[in-house]
Amino acid sequence: MPATQKITLHNPLDMHLHLRDEEMLHNIAQSSAKSFSGAIVMPNLVPPVTTKEAVIAYRSRIKEAIDDEAFTPYMTLFFKPDYSRAFLEEVRDEITAIKLYPAGITTNSEGGVSGFDVEELRETLEAMADLNIPLCVHGETNGFVMDREAEFVPIYEKLAKAFPKLKIIMEHITTKESVAALDRYENLYATITVHHLFITLDDVAGGMLQPHLFCKPIAKRPEDREALLRVALEAHPKVMFGSDSAPHPKHAKENCGCAAGVFTAPVALQLLTELFEKHNAPIENLQAFVSTNAQKIYGITPLQKSVTLIKEPFVVPAEYNGVVPMFAGEEIAYSIEEVNVG
Amino acid sequence: MPATQKITLHNPLDMHLHLRDEEMLHNIAQSSAKSFSGAIVMPNLVPPVTTKEAVIAYRSRIKEAIDDEAFTPYMTLFFKPDYSRAFLEEVRDEITAIKLYPAGITTNSEGGVSGFDVEELRETLEAMADLNIPLCVHGETNGFVMDREAEFVPIYEKLAKAFPKLKIIMEHITTKESVAALDRYENLYATITVHHLFITLDDVAGGMLQPHLFCKPIAKRPEDREALLRVALEAHPKVMFGSDSAPHPKHAKENCGCAAGVFTAPVALQLLTELFEKHNAPIENLQAFVSTNAQKIYGITPLQKSVTLIKEPFVVPAEYNGVVPMFAGEEIAYSIEEVNVG
Repeated sequence: MPATQKITLHNPLDMHLHLRDEEMLHNIAQSSAKSFSGAIVMPNLVPPVTTKEAVIAYRSRIKEAIDDEAFTPYMTLFFKPDYSRAFLEEVRDEITAIKLYPAGITTNSEGGVSGFDVEELRETLEAMADLNIPLCVHGETNGFVMDREAEFVPIYEKLAKAFPKLKIIMEHITTKESVAALDRYENLYATITVHHLFITLDDVAGGMLQPHLFCKPIAKRPEDREALLRVALEAHPKVMFGSDSAPHPKHAKENCGCAAGVFTAPVALQLLTELFEKHNAPIENLQAFVSTNAQKIYGITPLQKSVTLIKEPFVVPAEYNGVVPMFAGEEIAYSIEEVNVG
Repeated sequence: MPATQKITLHNPLDMHLHLRDEEMLHNIAQSSAKSFSGAIVMPNLVPPVTTKEAVIAYRSRIKEAIDDEAFTPYMTLFFKPDYSRAFLEEVRDEITAIKLYPAGITTNSEGGVSGFDVEELRETLEAMADLNIPLCVHGETNGFVMDREAEFVPIYEKLAKAFPKLKIIMEHITTKESVAALDRYENLYATITVHHLFITLDDVAGGMLQPHLFCKPIAKRPEDREALLRVALEAHPKVMFGSDSAPHPKHAKENCGCAAGVFTAPVALQLLTELFEKHNAPIENLQAFVSTNAQKIYGITPLQKSVTLIKEPFVVPAEYNGVVPMFAGEEIAYSIEEVNVG
């Protein structure tokens, strides 16, 4: 992308978003609704979203929280290995994907999957494949923190082989091992966050400890970040932007025993524009990374929304309604100039 | 070590300790003086300790802070490559070692060494070798946080080869690479902290982020911890206990941008006893690790002090004068029953 003054992105999509619930939902939903056409909304509430009624009710609460913004919350279910074909058929029209969490691996994931026995998962995953419901996966084992994602790659491969018609999205990938897996299996896709394109473990723990950059999966090594950057900047057709923007109240991030998650929703498009410009990537690639690839992979047609970014410094606010964003207080290169709907 | 009810350690030494200055010195010096015969006191004050007068004055302030406890502060200078032989001869009787910091690598190390040119260092290091002043080194490069220590090993080797009569102490080692270097050069020694025997990066950032376990060098991988445990438990003759106990006020640890350092001084001997028991290491090895090895390596004769530990649960206080210790609020297996001087 040449150093331009203005660029316009069409129908940006955030393919991995945490909107939480109740007060937090009301505090932060607008941050995404303002500049995105839609987002895949994660189902790890307390309790998790596991029924048709819960999906419908959560969608209503999101709609209420975003007032009348043009924004589609693409709803998801929290994966359970006992979802029947009949249940999935009934819920199909209400959801866009199903999210699988290994048990206990991240915020509110206690009820997730503990084993990855193909036969135990067969009925549900085959029904999902037949109904064209993508399986989104938080791919980490319970191993050593720097190895968890790479250790999960064989599980991705086992699932990809056993269910070749199932679209499997490796969520928020952070390692060169996951990037390499993308090209080995036709039915493996991935989302990449903006923060994992910017930081490594050095930024979290190399100087002072930075709780606002602490997330799961944790940021990895420089060579991992390079691998992510490569497929994002080239807009690899199996890769989509998914912020994994995850709000926690300031006190939960800055206290002892800080919660995992980086809040990027309000600055994601500005940061991605800065990044693509810095690396001289074509603007078409940014458009593909933030929208077109996802449309093709998921088969969705987003609401029409144009976001114009201008190369004017923007000082990131210290907080958005009590939530500290990435790069709080720092100056970033691009601002959102205007958003047009329709 | 068999599961005993009581053990007595003689003349324990902490070969790497931060006592800081002023209010903090007064708040925490007793924690070490109570249960140790002496400690190598690090010189990274603001400004660093670089003159004979500063050494003498700092020793006086320490003595004042510990009241009349039987405790020897073994003083150190902050290494400067321009220390002359004449200066070192003059200061020799006031110091036990000289501590080298690569520039900017940890708390108050801005004035440290930037290059490791053997010829630039020759006069000072040869004079130190001749005067039998050990060189203590914080061995980290400015590289990626998980690689910094391993990347420094070639610098240790270069120094060890160039100055074969100089005793070089690899301080607070955290990696299998440093452990391996110990046996390759006769003049390389090491200190190991208690926290690096207990934790890996998983404990710092694998679950919630734990600022009180954040330190430099950062805790590494499980196989690194295994390598440290092996040489500590066998009381490898070139390995000494050095706590690197580093107090920071609670707010500096729990705020955004947390300072590096774990405060272990008040619980170090209890934790080491628990560890050696758990691994069935002989009590003689613990004695060697916490005192005898250091006496031989440094050629020092500590004050006579016996510390009797009893297998009774001890709940670690939440704070010691505003400083949060390792395992604050948690129950550990051993308590200090009594300390006898002389």
